Amino acid sequence: MAATGAEAKDPENHPSSDRLVQLSNPNVATMKEDILYHFSLSTSTHDFPAMFGDVKFVCVGGSPSRMLTFIEYVATELGLGRPGDEHPNICSGTDRYAMYKVGPVLSVSHGMGIPSIAIMLHELLKLLYHAGCTDVTVIRIGTSGGIGLEPGSVVITRQAVDACFKPEFEQHVLGKRVVRGTDLDEGLAQELLRGSAELGEFTTVLGNTLCTLDFYEGQGRLDGALCSYTEKDKQAYLRAAHAAGVRNIEMESSVFAALCSACGLPAAVVCVTLLDRLLGDQISSPHEVLAEYQQRPQRLVGHFLKKRLGRA
Amino acid sequence: MAATGAEAKDPENHPSSDRLVQLSNPNVATMKEDILYHFSLSTSTHDFPAMFGDVKFVCVGGSPSRMLTFIEYVATELGLGRPGDEHPNICSGTDRYAMYKVGPVLSVSHGMGIPSIAIMLHELLKLLYHAGCTDVTVIRIGTSGGIGLEPGSVVITRQAVDACFKPEFEQHVLGKRVVRGTDLDEGLAQELLRGSAELGEFTTVLGNTLCTLDFYEGQGRLDGALCSYTEKDKQAYLRAAHAAGVRNIEMESSVFAALCSACGLPAAVVCVTLLDRLLGDQISSPHEVLAEYQQRPQRLVGHFLKKRLGRA
Repeated sequence: MAATGAEAKDPENHPSSDRLVQLSNPNVATMKEDILYHFSLSTSTHDFPAMFGDVKFVCVGGSPSRMLTFIEYVATELGLGRPGDEHPNICSGTDRYAMYKVGPVLSVSHGMGIPSIAIMLHELLKLLYHAGCTDVTVIRIGTSGGIGLEPGSVVITRQAVDACFKPEFEQHVLGKRVVRGTDLDEGLAQELLRGSAELGEFTTVLGNTLCTLDFYEGQGRLDGALCSYTEKDKQAYLRAAHAAGVRNIEMESSVFAALCSACGLPAAVVCVTLLDRLLGDQISSPHEVLAEYQQRPQRLVGHFLKKRLGRA
Repeated sequence: MAATGAEAKDPENHPSSDRLVQLSNPNVATMKEDILYHFSLSTSTHDFPAMFGDVKFVCVGGSPSRMLTFIEYVATELGLGRPGDEHPNICSGTDRYAMYKVGPVLSVSHGMGIPSIAIMLHELLKLLYHAGCTDVTVIRIGTSGGIGLEPGSVVITRQAVDACFKPEFEQHVLGKRVVRGTDLDEGLAQELLRGSAELGEFTTVLGNTLCTLDFYEGQGRLDGALCSYTEKDKQAYLRAAHAAGVRNIEMESSVFAALCSACGLPAAVVCVTLLDRLLGDQISSPHEVLAEYQQRPQRLVGHFLKKRLGRA
């Protein structure tokens, strides 16, 4: 069974009340209490509208420390708060995820891989719903392997594709295969691309993103604990990916696109490439180089937020 | 294509040199340097044999703070080190995983979900290989949802099964479907079960473990951001799982079993159940109760280590 497009809502075509974050689950509205277990937050112990009602932008990324760096960067760039302000972790009751907020911007870590980001997104979408948020945009900032790009290049995802290069996210629901689309917001992607041209600091391209369930065999690496194919097989696979428009490989974009789309939220994926997978598998650039690469999606999204919030 | 059983080695049937940790990838032996990126460790900057050569037991679990608690507990229980000893995080150069060591016991976090634990296991298996470790046993200690069990019960996994209750782990390698077995060590499971009977502190059962890629829809929860089925559908699925021998549900056991088996390491999965999924979806027990539940796999494995190391 395939999910229908009816799950996704286009905020542009609905009256303003429809720009509220909507869930695709009627049960949640009837729950007396909703415990967001992996955030260590609950509607009965936390005032979600007061804590999160003004959120307009949610930025997510794998590493908790990177998401703290991001909120510090955004606070400074947008002139929200003062230098040296502390940014407490809103999810301090757990070590599953970290969450930070400054003004209308929420920054949340999601760990590595589709299941880890999916848990976070289910609870994030419920958080935004309970808080009564409106007009929320969600952006994933991450790292990836590139295909045929200079390391340090940034890829804005056109379509998230699976291991067979199809724009689909497959999961099992009650033992049955369900396939969802992985549409992202085209206008948002173009806006981010224009922003990168304005910045003029690094190469940014629009391309498809291969989303895998595994970092080693799943991405054709030759250096895992298991490997049963040759360099030639690997090259053939990566070149087929490139021919299908794939410019980078990561592990979260497909479910991110599917869940945001199902709840009608415009979403984008902005990842820096740490290496060119046509030339190797190991991430061997010096620490400082990798650290600077990882700031690039943050700078791009920081510039976007400044413009959107009228501070550029 | 299906992986053959030839990948797995039975250490009992081989001369002692074969009880070295073996990889299922000939490329690694030829690499001049091996960077374990997600551990922030490299063979050219760290002396793996000196740091890890004496490791005999690796315990893994989702939460970094729980794996620190575990190493502190083991250090005390086994009389390794002194009370108040600090246990530095060996992977302090990254926030992807945390790793601690005391004597022959290594404790490593793996985050949530199959992709996250798979990255960790590939790098862990290579670490043990580079260190020249012999006779290593690997145990996952975790949390799970129970089916038809009193919350707080511990399940030792007989077989890790997929969403259709088959003892298989499916992944995509170079775009092709590969299915691996999810065998765990039966003798080790029985030894852990006997140990729990000796402890006599909580109910422990042997059962199949359903390993899913999603916590909400993938486990039949009614309280996610998306849900398109009824309570009746959910009950039918969970009861079918129970009829197939499933006693708990988590998100890592299948790839854990598949990868350890492929490299010939005896492995076991010991998870406490935080709730009975036949009665609900939300994890709503008080914090102190959940904290005590989470200690149970640690106490069971602590007892096992004491006996194995001749300290009981």
